[in-house]
Amino acid sequence: MKNTFEILEQLILKNRSYRRFYQSEKVATEDLKSWINLARQSASARNLQTLKYIVVNTEEQCQQIFPLLSWAGYLKDWDASEQGERPSAYIVVLNDNHLSEEYFSDDGIASQSILLGATACGYGGCIIAAVKRKELRSILKIDPQYKIIQVIALGKPKERVVLDEVGKDGDIKYWREENGVHHVPKRKIDELILKI
Amino acid sequence: MKNTFEILEQLILKNRSYRRFYQSEKVATEDLKSWINLARQSASARNLQTLKYIVVNTEEQCQQIFPLLSWAGYLKDWDASEQGERPSAYIVVLNDNHLSEEYFSDDGIASQSILLGATACGYGGCIIAAVKRKELRSILKIDPQYKIIQVIALGKPKERVVLDEVGKDGDIKYWREENGVHHVPKRKIDELILKI
Repeated sequence: MKNTFEILEQLILKNRSYRRFYQSEKVATEDLKSWINLARQSASARNLQTLKYIVVNTEEQCQQIFPLLSWAGYLKDWDASEQGERPSAYIVVLNDNHLSEEYFSDDGIASQSILLGATACGYGGCIIAAVKRKELRSILKIDPQYKIIQVIALGKPKERVVLDEVGKDGDIKYWREENGVHHVPKRKIDELILKI
Repeated sequence: MKNTFEILEQLILKNRSYRRFYQSEKVATEDLKSWINLARQSASARNLQTLKYIVVNTEEQCQQIFPLLSWAGYLKDWDASEQGERPSAYIVVLNDNHLSEEYFSDDGIASQSILLGATACGYGGCIIAAVKRKELRSILKIDPQYKIIQVIALGKPKERVVLDEVGKDGDIKYWREENGVHHVPKRKIDELILKI
């Protein structure tokens, strides 16, 4: 039987940034709430819990939001807008500036908890920071007190993502095989740890 | 048998911010590396992987680093410096500004992966952003190209941490019972989700 660490490591490995989905596979509101609940139960700087969320999973709203997101900057030949492979849900991550304008690393903690939750349920997603914020604010009627931090796109993944080692040229740009397999070069552990 | 989501949720619930430890319980270098390896395999904005780490787990260095950290701002009566209950390891999270000064939410993603790894192995910790950076830089000889983002204190937890609901007064300050049980008021899920 696998121990908890092994289960966690496999979950983290499975939790890749997915950009192609089975668009017709919907994500239930209750699932989305359960993932936000994981974020809710995660650490928060000074326990201020300033993050707020908007959940989007109707077809109409997904259609509106998709064009406001920039996808896969390194894949110049890929037109992300292909119908049938778009996300079927989004979680918009906001900061409630009325509580505090400073949220330290809460955004990443929460987003990681949400995505691990999604992965554990057989879904997957991608954090997108390149967002047309003005348009998104208008479409979702987001009050000025909330800062739009990032959008987590979610759905049933329709692609294979492979981790490679960064090569000698040091290039970290992800790339895609003709058959669609998506490769992500990761730096070696010894490059990340400066001192032990 | 529990499914992966249940295991993840229990792990996230177990992964509280611990501030009191069995100081004599050391954390092995290999364990610390394995947790950073989880961060390495987690998402990174534009896959730039700008985060770097310093691992500290010798008694001498732990002694030096402890006074540079501010503990539990809301517990005015608690003198964190009690010997015997201090962390026995630290991971300093840095950003390599030579790669990019912008790291989006990578810091939180990585820190959450590290802490979930620690929790899965029976350890626990606390993210500390209130750090005397100049002194830490000097003691650990951190080159100016690295920004000190935060420090993750780690060890074998020696306290019980309980999540409560935020009361009607809206007070989110954590507090401690006389018997040492640490209470953390969390906002309700419906307060966090603005729209569905």
